[in-house]
Amino acid sequence: MPDVDFCVVGAGFAGLTAALRLQQAGRSVVLMEARDRVGGRTYTENLPDGSWIDRGAAWIGPGQDRIYGLLNEFDVPTYKQYVDGESMMIIDGKQHRYAGTIPWTISPWATTNLGVGLLKVRQMCRSIPLEAPWTARKAVEWDQISLAAWIDQNLWSQQARDMLDMALAGPYTSAASEVSLLWVLYQMASGGGPDFVVSNKDGSQDARPVGGMGAIYRPMAAELGDALQLSQPVRRIAHDDDAVTVCSDELRVRARRVIVAVPLAIASQISYEPMLPVDRSFLQQRMPGGAIVKISVVYDEPFWRADGLSGQSAAPGSLATLTIDACTDTGAPGVLCVITEGPTARRLGQLEESARKAAVVGELVDRFGERAGSPVSYHEQNWALERYSGGGMISHAPTGVLTQFGPALRQPCGRIHWAGTESSAVMCGWVDGAVRSGERAAAEVLACETASSAPA
Amino acid sequence: MPDVDFCVVGAGFAGLTAALRLQQAGRSVVLMEARDRVGGRTYTENLPDGSWIDRGAAWIGPGQDRIYGLLNEFDVPTYKQYVDGESMMIIDGKQHRYAGTIPWTISPWATTNLGVGLLKVRQMCRSIPLEAPWTARKAVEWDQISLAAWIDQNLWSQQARDMLDMALAGPYTSAASEVSLLWVLYQMASGGGPDFVVSNKDGSQDARPVGGMGAIYRPMAAELGDALQLSQPVRRIAHDDDAVTVCSDELRVRARRVIVAVPLAIASQISYEPMLPVDRSFLQQRMPGGAIVKISVVYDEPFWRADGLSGQSAAPGSLATLTIDACTDTGAPGVLCVITEGPTARRLGQLEESARKAAVVGELVDRFGERAGSPVSYHEQNWALERYSGGGMISHAPTGVLTQFGPALRQPCGRIHWAGTESSAVMCGWVDGAVRSGERAAAEVLACETASSAPA
Repeated sequence: MPDVDFCVVGAGFAGLTAALRLQQAGRSVVLMEARDRVGGRTYTENLPDGSWIDRGAAWIGPGQDRIYGLLNEFDVPTYKQYVDGESMMIIDGKQHRYAGTIPWTISPWATTNLGVGLLKVRQMCRSIPLEAPWTARKAVEWDQISLAAWIDQNLWSQQARDMLDMALAGPYTSAASEVSLLWVLYQMASGGGPDFVVSNKDGSQDARPVGGMGAIYRPMAAELGDALQLSQPVRRIAHDDDAVTVCSDELRVRARRVIVAVPLAIASQISYEPMLPVDRSFLQQRMPGGAIVKISVVYDEPFWRADGLSGQSAAPGSLATLTIDACTDTGAPGVLCVITEGPTARRLGQLEESARKAAVVGELVDRFGERAGSPVSYHEQNWALERYSGGGMISHAPTGVLTQFGPALRQPCGRIHWAGTESSAVMCGWVDGAVRSGERAAAEVLACETASSAPA
Repeated sequence: MPDVDFCVVGAGFAGLTAALRLQQAGRSVVLMEARDRVGGRTYTENLPDGSWIDRGAAWIGPGQDRIYGLLNEFDVPTYKQYVDGESMMIIDGKQHRYAGTIPWTISPWATTNLGVGLLKVRQMCRSIPLEAPWTARKAVEWDQISLAAWIDQNLWSQQARDMLDMALAGPYTSAASEVSLLWVLYQMASGGGPDFVVSNKDGSQDARPVGGMGAIYRPMAAELGDALQLSQPVRRIAHDDDAVTVCSDELRVRARRVIVAVPLAIASQISYEPMLPVDRSFLQQRMPGGAIVKISVVYDEPFWRADGLSGQSAAPGSLATLTIDACTDTGAPGVLCVITEGPTARRLGQLEESARKAAVVGELVDRFGERAGSPVSYHEQNWALERYSGGGMISHAPTGVLTQFGPALRQPCGRIHWAGTESSAVMCGWVDGAVRSGERAAAEVLACETASSAPA
């Protein structure tokens, strides 16, 4: 007889949500997490002064109804991302200030080209069926080239190319040459298109929970109580017609079904007995994580605001590629968040710690003035070094993978079900997608139970 | 103090060769193999009548000096692949017989186009520096599109496209949309170009060892004696400045250095402590294996030879895509080998066992007549189901991977060194490349030893 009704592997937002929904449905659950903390690719650090920073995914936006559902459930208020003042684009060492989303001050040539590029992307996104992107009319064509090849073929201005590369390849935190055009279009479409991706206000960086993501995941973990087992990396999942057995080095949980809610590359490190169907095990070999370094630089106050700056800046190729105002709802202390992705993040990660800090803070001084040179504290998170994430921000599909193996993203394998933001047809790649995937997987296992026999 | 000088992980040809060379140099070695057999992606089965079949890699060719070196060392004779008689290409259900390499009987249009395509590939291959393909003048351009995109853009005849897809994507046993053009060119160039890849006589399928690959790997294993530890899947490699510790569930070996000689996707399932450098761990997430089913159908005699047929046939998209005469040196019994790769192999693998056999034998009857319907025995090997290979025939690089992570293919990580055919600059992807990689890795660890301190 099983020890519990269901086991969930991985306590990021997908796994936390799945476990919580199952527990709320009156089922017994064990949630096994490899780390000594929950949150997965979100990670809120509380600072000594009572404020907080998000070392991982941080923002939410309109249309992300399921993460908003959790916020309501746990009475967590939100606040808007600070967007007043001018943003900055640095091209060839020269700073261009602008308001809005498109850096029109650079050159009419580049911004026109960028605008045309985004228009094309918007149109292509519209033709993607979210539940089955591999059935898009041009799926085969779009899945056989990388994003880099498409940018090469469709943009003529080098500045526009650099900007689009940064905006679109960014979320995959890998080189644009590594990512399938179809995957990029699908992932953007799942959020509503490129405007959602690249926008702060009304876009994917519209707002944040007060207290950071931890303000949601901590009460979720608390509600799960003893069901949550930390520091239990799952090594092996045995499954047969009757049950599953999920093993870490210390624990052995027998359950009716298991929901695996970890990134694809991490799922591939678990030993399955018997082996998974070929399409699923091959998919797990084929969706890698990327490199992203997220740095929170804390100041006594957000001095850039007084200078008429939003805190947002972008410098393609720079070791501090993107910056954004990351203050709490009170606006104190001042927090600038630096995000560097893909090949540049790998380059940054190879520097010594002191050289990294010097390079990043030096960039901030160039952009925001001398006061940027004296931070109160400096917090660096290199997701490429996270053993149990296998990289950040999200997994991507190289060319050919979505058309060959796409259905395996969510198709259960016997008593093994799959969650994780990459498996969500809506808001794929955002925290909201993770929540959706957890709710979908929980509903899946409950439906299977009803279809076979009632719980004991 | 270390238990042994060196540990080697994986007893395919790369690991066997590395361990043997180290032992011959007077060093103590432990070779840990996950399976209960050696050979890796080669696997010779001895039949009750004293003959044998190769269920994995089988052929050798000119220029493959290091596998020939082993053949000499262990006194294993070779014999030529049977190539007399006509070959067969099946297009749209119609059989075309032809002699030579190019199926010129199909249509002048298609064969001209195929010839032009191969000429272009040959020229591109010439510009690839084997030791560093990522430095080729057009590396960035070629690494941002898949082989499928290149075929689409450069061949106008559908028949020629199908044939080139089959010939070039075949070795990667994945869809042509999954494989980087740069990787394809590099891998072909490492064997001398496309002519070597697609040819039997004087090409990559020129000859075979008498007794099959097992006639080499068995005496190698015998010579290693107690150094070889079977059924020991390695779970964990801990490494520091002084030594490495390699652990299976049962064994714990402390050594000066370790050579990991398993496919990339399998290397990614080992837990490294501390973690590997980002470029290596990301590479291991990014080079998947493919699907290949190799079936040996045994008859009392090679009846097709009397009919003027070579036994070679190709039918793009068919469940029995390729056939080739696979008799032993004596020509008795008759063995037809069926090879089905990539998406078609996955389709074949999803059928029930009896349906698979019926489909394959049915195809053989269509091509070789009624006698093909009565085999003496039928031996099926689905490499996609091999837990410790992670697929077959070889790992491939998707777009962007070779230019981003190529150097990590062989760059040692502290005391961890890498072997396996995918890490060989010459004959990458063949058994000869595996042997070369084993010899190179053995030389590497010996050189490190000399550079630091002499052995105890």
